[in-house]
Amino acid sequence: MPTPVRGRLADDREILLYDSDTGLGVDRRDLPRRSPLPVTTVRRDPRTGDRVIVAPARQERTYHPPRQMCPLCPDPDGRSSEIPAADYRVAVLENRFPALSTVGVPYRAVPEANPLRVEELGTGRCEVVCFSSDHDGSFAALSDEHARLMIDVWAHRTAELFARDDIAEVYCFENRGAEIGVTLAHPHGQIYGYPFRTRRTRDLLRTAAAYRAEHGTDLFESILADEIADRTRLLVRTEHTTAFVPFAARWPVEVHVYPNRHVRNLIDLTAAEADDLALVYLTVLRAFDALYARPLPYIASWHQYRADAEEGYLHAELFSVRRSADKLKYLAGSESGRDAFLNDKTPETIAADLRAVIA
Amino acid sequence: MPTPVRGRLADDREILLYDSDTGLGVDRRDLPRRSPLPVTTVRRDPRTGDRVIVAPARQERTYHPPRQMCPLCPDPDGRSSEIPAADYRVAVLENRFPALSTVGVPYRAVPEANPLRVEELGTGRCEVVCFSSDHDGSFAALSDEHARLMIDVWAHRTAELFARDDIAEVYCFENRGAEIGVTLAHPHGQIYGYPFRTRRTRDLLRTAAAYRAEHGTDLFESILADEIADRTRLLVRTEHTTAFVPFAARWPVEVHVYPNRHVRNLIDLTAAEADDLALVYLTVLRAFDALYARPLPYIASWHQYRADAEEGYLHAELFSVRRSADKLKYLAGSESGRDAFLNDKTPETIAADLRAVIA
Repeated sequence: MPTPVRGRLADDREILLYDSDTGLGVDRRDLPRRSPLPVTTVRRDPRTGDRVIVAPARQERTYHPPRQMCPLCPDPDGRSSEIPAADYRVAVLENRFPALSTVGVPYRAVPEANPLRVEELGTGRCEVVCFSSDHDGSFAALSDEHARLMIDVWAHRTAELFARDDIAEVYCFENRGAEIGVTLAHPHGQIYGYPFRTRRTRDLLRTAAAYRAEHGTDLFESILADEIADRTRLLVRTEHTTAFVPFAARWPVEVHVYPNRHVRNLIDLTAAEADDLALVYLTVLRAFDALYARPLPYIASWHQYRADAEEGYLHAELFSVRRSADKLKYLAGSESGRDAFLNDKTPETIAADLRAVIA
Repeated sequence: MPTPVRGRLADDREILLYDSDTGLGVDRRDLPRRSPLPVTTVRRDPRTGDRVIVAPARQERTYHPPRQMCPLCPDPDGRSSEIPAADYRVAVLENRFPALSTVGVPYRAVPEANPLRVEELGTGRCEVVCFSSDHDGSFAALSDEHARLMIDVWAHRTAELFARDDIAEVYCFENRGAEIGVTLAHPHGQIYGYPFRTRRTRDLLRTAAAYRAEHGTDLFESILADEIADRTRLLVRTEHTTAFVPFAARWPVEVHVYPNRHVRNLIDLTAAEADDLALVYLTVLRAFDALYARPLPYIASWHQYRADAEEGYLHAELFSVRRSADKLKYLAGSESGRDAFLNDKTPETIAADLRAVIA
C-alpha cells in the first residue's frame, strides 16, 4: 500500500500526493471557509424508495475553465490551482463542490415523522483523483507502471474510507468526455464515499443472494465462468484478469473487467493480480479510443465491497454513450421514464468491434 | 372515445388519423417489406434482473432529416412522407424503426436453459403520435381543444393496446428537444406497448403494495394529499387536477400531474376530468418553455395501469435535463453507474422558479 504525502488546502480540505518527488507546497489562495452546516441532504423517493442527493451548492461548480486556469494542473506558487506542488504523479483531494456533505453531523436518517418525506442528513466523502499532471493526458495514455500506481491509489483510498463508520460504499469512477458532462478537461476520476448503499449495489447484492439460494453458487463467479465458456463476447483473458461484453449490455459500448480470483475489493488483490488488472484495464481503454480513432467519452465504474459483505465480486464496468462515429445514445423516454434500456447494438457486435481494435 | 380513420402504409404498417377532415390517401412509396422475423429481442441482465431491449435495426433510423424531407409532415401525394394526407390534426402510425418487434411470434420467455443468458422474443407495439401537422409547432402551442383531443387519442390507443394479450404495459411519452436525442423536429410523441412490465412500473407497484400493507392506505393518494397539505412544492390545483414538484425530484426541472380522483388510466377519466387535465398539462408545458424563454428539452412520461391492476394511479411525470439557461444535467457516474441521482436544485427552488412563470 503506498504512503502518500498529506496536506491541507486553504479551506482545510485534505490533499494527498502519491509517489511524489517534489512534495506539497502551501496553498496561498484566499478561499472561503467551508460551511459547518450540511450542504447536501438525501431524500427518499416515496414511490420507489430510491435515494436522491440534493446538492444545491454544486450549481456553482467550476465549468469548463480556460486551460491556463485549470484547477488540476500543478501550481508551484500555490496561488492558482487546487494542487500546490511543482509536479505530481497522482493527486487526490477533497472535492471543492462535493455531492455529499463532508463536514457536519454524522449521517443519520431523520426520524420518519412523515414516511412520504424522509430526508437524511450527514457526511460522506467526495474526492477528485488526478491521474497525471499532464493536462492533455488520459488514463489510456498512462504508462503501465503509472496505471499500476492508480490501482494502488484506489486501493489505498478504499481501505481508508472503508475504515470509516459513516461510509457504506466506496465508489471509484471516472467520467471522461464533455459528451457526458465532464466540466474539467484535465484527466481525473472521482471517489464517492456514499453514506448509504446505492440502488445498484443493493440490486446486485440482492440478486446475488437470490441466485445463491436458488443455485447454490456465486452469481458473479458463474457469470465469469459462463462468459469464458461461451467465448462469444470475450475480449481479453489473461492469467489473472478477464474482460468481456456482458450478455445484456445496456450501452452501445460496454465492457466488464473481472479478476479471475474472487475478491471483494481492490485491497484484496495480490501484487501480481493488480499488475495484470492494470494492463487489461489499459488494453480496454486503448481499444475504446481506437474504436472511432478519437477519444471515446466513457464512464468507468468500479464495484467493490467490504471484506465481510454477504455477496459481491470486485469488477469494473466501462461503458460509453457513443453509438457510432457521429451519434450518441441518449437516455430518453424508455430509459429515463421506465428504466427500460434500448441498445441499438447487439452485445456480440460490440464485442466483435472491440476485438478488431484490441492491439 | 374518438373514431379514427384507419389505413395501411406501403409496408403494411398501420396508420390512424383522428378528427380528420381530409381522410387518408394512398402511400405510393416503394418501401421494403417488413421482416417476418423478430427484429428485436429482450435480454435479462443476470446481475439485476432488468430487461434490456436489443434493437440493432434502429441504428439505421432517420436522423435529423432536412425540413423538406420531414417524414411526419402531411403529404397529399403519398410519395415523400409517412402520412399520405392533405392535412391532419393528430396522426398515429406504427414506428418504421421499432424498439420492439411488431411482427413475428407472440411474446414468450425462452425456456431458461441457462439462467445467466435469458433471451426473450416476441411482439410489442411502437407507435409515433404526431400532435399536429404544423412542423414548427409543439405540444405547448396546441389549442386547449387540440390538447384535449390528444388526451382522447392517448386514451383510445391505451384502450386498444390494453385489449391485447401480448402487451403488459402501455406507455405514452414524449421526448422533446435535440438535447435529449430527438432526431425528428416535427412535434410528436410515442407510445410503447411493452410485452413485459418495466422496472419502474414494477418498482412503483411493489412500493405501493408495501405501503398499503404497512399503512393501510393508497401510496399515491397519500402522496397527493400530502403535497396538497404541505403546499411547498404545489404548482397548480384545479377542480380535477393537481400539479406539483415531487419531494424527491431527480431532475433540475420535474413536475408530476395527478387527477384528483383516483383512476388507473386515461380511459377512466370523465369528460370534465379530461378537459381539466389537458389544461393543466398545457399550463405546465408552457411554464417549461417560459423558464428560460426558449423551448425546454423535456421528457413527458405517463404512468397508467389496467383497470384490474393491484395498485397504481394515473399520473404524468414531466422533467428536463436543463439545469440552467446554458447548462444541462448529464447522467454520469453516480446516476448511470449507481442509480444514485444528484440534483443541483432543491425541489422547493424548482417549484418557486416554475410558479414565477405560470401565467
